[in-house]
Amino acid sequence: MSVARFFAPAADVSGDRVLLPVDEAEHLTRVLRLSVGDRVRVFNGRGAEFEAVVDTADRSGVCLHIGAPCAPAPEPRIAITLAQAVLKSDKMDEVVRDAVMIGVAAIQPILSSRTETSIDALARGRRRERWQRIAVSSAKQCGRAVVPPIHEPQPFPPRSSSELRCPQPVLVLVEPALSSGMSLGGLDVAIPDTATLMVGPEGGWSAEEVEAASALGSLITIGQRTLRADAMGLVALAALFTHWREF
Amino acid sequence: MSVARFFAPAADVSGDRVLLPVDEAEHLTRVLRLSVGDRVRVFNGRGAEFEAVVDTADRSGVCLHIGAPCAPAPEPRIAITLAQAVLKSDKMDEVVRDAVMIGVAAIQPILSSRTETSIDALARGRRRERWQRIAVSSAKQCGRAVVPPIHEPQPFPPRSSSELRCPQPVLVLVEPALSSGMSLGGLDVAIPDTATLMVGPEGGWSAEEVEAASALGSLITIGQRTLRADAMGLVALAALFTHWREF
Repeated sequence: MSVARFFAPAADVSGDRVLLPVDEAEHLTRVLRLSVGDRVRVFNGRGAEFEAVVDTADRSGVCLHIGAPCAPAPEPRIAITLAQAVLKSDKMDEVVRDAVMIGVAAIQPILSSRTETSIDALARGRRRERWQRIAVSSAKQCGRAVVPPIHEPQPFPPRSSSELRCPQPVLVLVEPALSSGMSLGGLDVAIPDTATLMVGPEGGWSAEEVEAASALGSLITIGQRTLRADAMGLVALAALFTHWREF
Repeated sequence: MSVARFFAPAADVSGDRVLLPVDEAEHLTRVLRLSVGDRVRVFNGRGAEFEAVVDTADRSGVCLHIGAPCAPAPEPRIAITLAQAVLKSDKMDEVVRDAVMIGVAAIQPILSSRTETSIDALARGRRRERWQRIAVSSAKQCGRAVVPPIHEPQPFPPRSSSELRCPQPVLVLVEPALSSGMSLGGLDVAIPDTATLMVGPEGGWSAEEVEAASALGSLITIGQRTLRADAMGLVALAALFTHWREF
């Protein structure tokens, strides 16, 4: 159970050797202080996981010898994309961490009118890359062998319908005060293969955005209390996984 | 919508005047910089909420004139108690905040063998009082007019069955690796009036505790991934409210 797990995108075949990415190699040697001969696990971020042994560990990097395949935490049957309006400061980091932990298939960051940043500022800050690293770290913690992709941030409403990577059906979370949202009881119980959950920023959606969202999918409300913006995604994902009998 | 809300346990009757507790008075004058004549709302923590006007605000305190009753966020039909093993540092604060936000009826802090504190240390640190203040603050944010009580921390397993304030049915959250937990699909869908969700500490339950918990209620598992200890309560509450058609 407590064997350390490492992410190596190139780990595919038992018997091969694989070089760990720099971050992972540092985690192995500096944080966990493991060395040659130690047993670990390695997963490739696309669902495969193996037993492994540290083969070499020096300044040039860490190489693992890939052993027998083993079973990671099962993936949900429904591939849910979280389309999340970018939140302030490090709150988006927490949203990414928690969404990966509970089992999302992908994250599509979006920028709505009340999002307090811009696509240029996110690019300059290399935020997408940071969120992708957080997704790796969360996958390691929660036992998944899949690292959900963090898509390029896009404006909402989108300039064209192909920009947003939001598989149907799309469910747009709205505040309980906005009486147009239906409760989960009103949602089709047929279990889809994919779905998108769209969550707004701290200040909520503007009226124009709610209208644009209505054209894209269904407005839903989760409970009758006002949730913190950074907890909305986690709560709504837990509710959807329960509604669709994944939990 | 954005009228500030204040907590005054003595607010019961329209037309009366009510003195705000010191914390609330400071929030009104120092943080929100409101003064005589400003319109606010006041709730009593037991479900009643009123419109109100600031009547006096000086060094001796803040007094409100209580107006017409108004509707707070609806309470869940199911009164769920969260029996949470006390987590490290400020993580328990976050659990209390989030549990109140999503709609628990009460919180019973428990100390299991892997809890890294003691009942004496919690008492010395006045932690229960701190959690109760956090519950007030969260109720203000999320729109509830009910402030869930934080019960006195108790050891688990309890020395006697009357110590723990855990209404039946009791559901004990266990890790997916512990195959004795059933998924929510296995849980009776008849909606109870009350229930208790029991959540362990960072290191999980010991084998003896799982046995004691089995005697008290049902072991359940939420999903197949390993959740962060401080997110377990929120995720499981969201799942239970969905399963019992509250969401």
